[in-house]
Amino acid sequence: MDDARTGFRSTAQFLRSARTDQSPETPDPDAFLAERSAAAQYRVDVVPLGTLPGWHTGDLVAHESGRFFTVEGIDIQTNFGPADRWCQPIIVQPEIGILGILVKRIHGVPHFLMQAKMEPGNTIPTQFAATVQATPSNYQRVHGGRPTPYLEYFRDRGAHRTVFDQLLSEHGSWYLRKRNRNMIVEVPENEDVDVLEDYTWLTLGQLRRQLRLGSRVNMNTRTILSGITYAEDTEDETTAGRRGDFDDAVVQSHTDETGDDELRDVTSWLNDQKATYSLTVRRIPLTALDGWTVASDSIHRQDGSGLRIVGMSVSATSREVTEWSQPMLEPTPQSTILLLCQRQSGKLRMLMQATVQPGLIDGVELTATVHVNDDFASEHAPPFSEYADAPESWERFNAMQSEDGGRFLRADTVHRVVEIPEDHLLELPANYRWMTLGLLQRLIRSGYVVNIEARSLVSCLL
Amino acid sequence: MDDARTGFRSTAQFLRSARTDQSPETPDPDAFLAERSAAAQYRVDVVPLGTLPGWHTGDLVAHESGRFFTVEGIDIQTNFGPADRWCQPIIVQPEIGILGILVKRIHGVPHFLMQAKMEPGNTIPTQFAATVQATPSNYQRVHGGRPTPYLEYFRDRGAHRTVFDQLLSEHGSWYLRKRNRNMIVEVPENEDVDVLEDYTWLTLGQLRRQLRLGSRVNMNTRTILSGITYAEDTEDETTAGRRGDFDDAVVQSHTDETGDDELRDVTSWLNDQKATYSLTVRRIPLTALDGWTVASDSIHRQDGSGLRIVGMSVSATSREVTEWSQPMLEPTPQSTILLLCQRQSGKLRMLMQATVQPGLIDGVELTATVHVNDDFASEHAPPFSEYADAPESWERFNAMQSEDGGRFLRADTVHRVVEIPEDHLLELPANYRWMTLGLLQRLIRSGYVVNIEARSLVSCLL
Repeated sequence: MDDARTGFRSTAQFLRSARTDQSPETPDPDAFLAERSAAAQYRVDVVPLGTLPGWHTGDLVAHESGRFFTVEGIDIQTNFGPADRWCQPIIVQPEIGILGILVKRIHGVPHFLMQAKMEPGNTIPTQFAATVQATPSNYQRVHGGRPTPYLEYFRDRGAHRTVFDQLLSEHGSWYLRKRNRNMIVEVPENEDVDVLEDYTWLTLGQLRRQLRLGSRVNMNTRTILSGITYAEDTEDETTAGRRGDFDDAVVQSHTDETGDDELRDVTSWLNDQKATYSLTVRRIPLTALDGWTVASDSIHRQDGSGLRIVGMSVSATSREVTEWSQPMLEPTPQSTILLLCQRQSGKLRMLMQATVQPGLIDGVELTATVHVNDDFASEHAPPFSEYADAPESWERFNAMQSEDGGRFLRADTVHRVVEIPEDHLLELPANYRWMTLGLLQRLIRSGYVVNIEARSLVSCLL
Repeated sequence: MDDARTGFRSTAQFLRSARTDQSPETPDPDAFLAERSAAAQYRVDVVPLGTLPGWHTGDLVAHESGRFFTVEGIDIQTNFGPADRWCQPIIVQPEIGILGILVKRIHGVPHFLMQAKMEPGNTIPTQFAATVQATPSNYQRVHGGRPTPYLEYFRDRGAHRTVFDQLLSEHGSWYLRKRNRNMIVEVPENEDVDVLEDYTWLTLGQLRRQLRLGSRVNMNTRTILSGITYAEDTEDETTAGRRGDFDDAVVQSHTDETGDDELRDVTSWLNDQKATYSLTVRRIPLTALDGWTVASDSIHRQDGSGLRIVGMSVSATSREVTEWSQPMLEPTPQSTILLLCQRQSGKLRMLMQATVQPGLIDGVELTATVHVNDDFASEHAPPFSEYADAPESWERFNAMQSEDGGRFLRADTVHRVVEIPEDHLLELPANYRWMTLGLLQRLIRSGYVVNIEARSLVSCLL
């Protein structure tokens, strides 16, 4: 079986990695993370927005260099959801960052080069991050910081195999039309890679365990991992004996050979949703945001609800520069994203929702079945929110995960996957649809179709 | 050979249609078009912008109903091309229009239901148009006009096969993030379709001849047709004898079974271009456009160069309503788009350019090799513009074609395809790349990758 879409001769190589939860490369990932975390001395303080050196707040929040990012106001009109018009601040960062993971077969099993990285916004700051996460501002060293290790594998790919290279959307409620370049690059088995202090090789099985523990695998890693498919290779004898410890319905859901007919149907359905839902986003001065106050300490709603823009000051040794300050977006606390799934004809299918978010590149993408406690939630509960109270035995996954801790402060989201019984018949509103993981992977590989919340949940189904 | 991507059991069905230049359904397409053109009584006048009933000009040009479209100002910054900053008016129309063609096998050969349609902006107003071209404003009958014929085939597709359904970008210098839904829907051979007065069935061979005549096949038809692939089916005996009258290098270029490896390479290269070229577009009031005058008759550059926004008044019998007025964008006259191609290992490859246009959804798309006389052309000739003076014997295609005559006034673009000799070695700047038609078709089917100028040229290579 040759899957040209993943680049690996067989997707079973990834399945084997997912089934391998021990590796001599990193005998104890918990200890590695704890040790690197302890080695990183830093201090994070929330400070008044107006005191950030180099940053100015007025009609927008901007750095005097003109680089990094800005916080701007937007006025949103849409016919999707309970609110037909609102305004809010949003982060604008047009440049494309590289989120890249190096992969290499070690003793025949693909290992991923992970970095223990501190991100100041994360409640648990040091987590497993991608080999490289760098914006042009980073790697052109606008900060005056150190060069980005391993960047050359992703910038100059001639010698190596690109397994995955896709522009994907970032958080559509907090970032305006932001996208990053999600990459996996393979280094040949016989090529040496210098493993620096904060880095270590992990199998997907090891990452899987970290995902289940929660707040251990950062958002950038999760979005990259969502691009991997794990189809079963029946000829792969070495894995056959180990099937018991891995969920067959998940593998079958990945193995699903989604026909082009189904892909075409889904594309038409998605085009229907894009034609149905309107979205107009206009940038306006922060000072013109109706119901918001631009104060010297923060930008916030007058009623205290919703997200805030605050200042943050960091001293650290494990990042590109040892001290810096920046604005951060602090969301409404305690969000939950819930993915309903169901075994249908032996395959797990996910209930996906086509949603509008103001920052999405084409307005509409697929997201989780339910978002609980969104900033602009209605008093009316959204469809399927009753499944937040499903019996514990239906729970397939439940763990806290962080959003991007480089921009978002204490943005912790409960990730839940709930499997409803096979005999449950759900009536679906027009913008909901069941999809296998195999189909979702093809859609992720089509670009701006599956949003970051959905991709994060998909990665948790490793 | 089963090509699930096109929906037709065999792409050779389309190839057969392309090779069929006579049909008893429409024995004389020229006569049909001339007759319908003569039957359409209308009158088009350019009138002062300020006199358009229902339209108001100020910070933007808008209709009092809030529908249709607006003309707004934008301020553009980019590191692509000779100008790093400029401003201009642009058309904003967020709604998604349907551009749809019905196809049906008649005597075994696919025929396309074409409409003789008057578009007031076209220099030659009545041309072959798609079966349906309708915005939600049209089909929700905001104009108070007649219902759109055949719309139900594209809105309620349950009973029919969707051959092609893709959101594609519109003109990126004149429309802000505009996209339309390009569709081909198949009616079974045994199902009757009522053919209304302005409509007739044409084969692709007949359309091919109309394309070569120039200004006969409108822009919406051309973009839809660019989604068709014509791979050779060696088992299709009926066509084997007729190969002589059709260009084998074009068919081979379509037949190219583009590997997923090549598709991945091109995607990575395109991501490189998107990472290299920046684009920031901000909407600003028309009255704030530097160097422009908002006058009662038109919006124009103070030096008289470049595009203009003017008013137009139409009386007609062959459109949804019999009289209307609207603003129109009148571009700089006498544009030429030039596509270089070359026979490489028996296949025709096209030299595609990754370009930035302010209105493109993701900033960068593929376009023709050379645009001559763009609004913002530099004094320095763009790469490969010397091939505009290539010997006549190199010319594969040369005909005038109209842009969308519903929004653009006298927007006539010379379409040229020039084939350079096989032994010519070109040195390519990093944002140029050779591609087969087969690869281009896959990219067209990926969404916002191939821009409308390039798609229009591809359709001329039928």
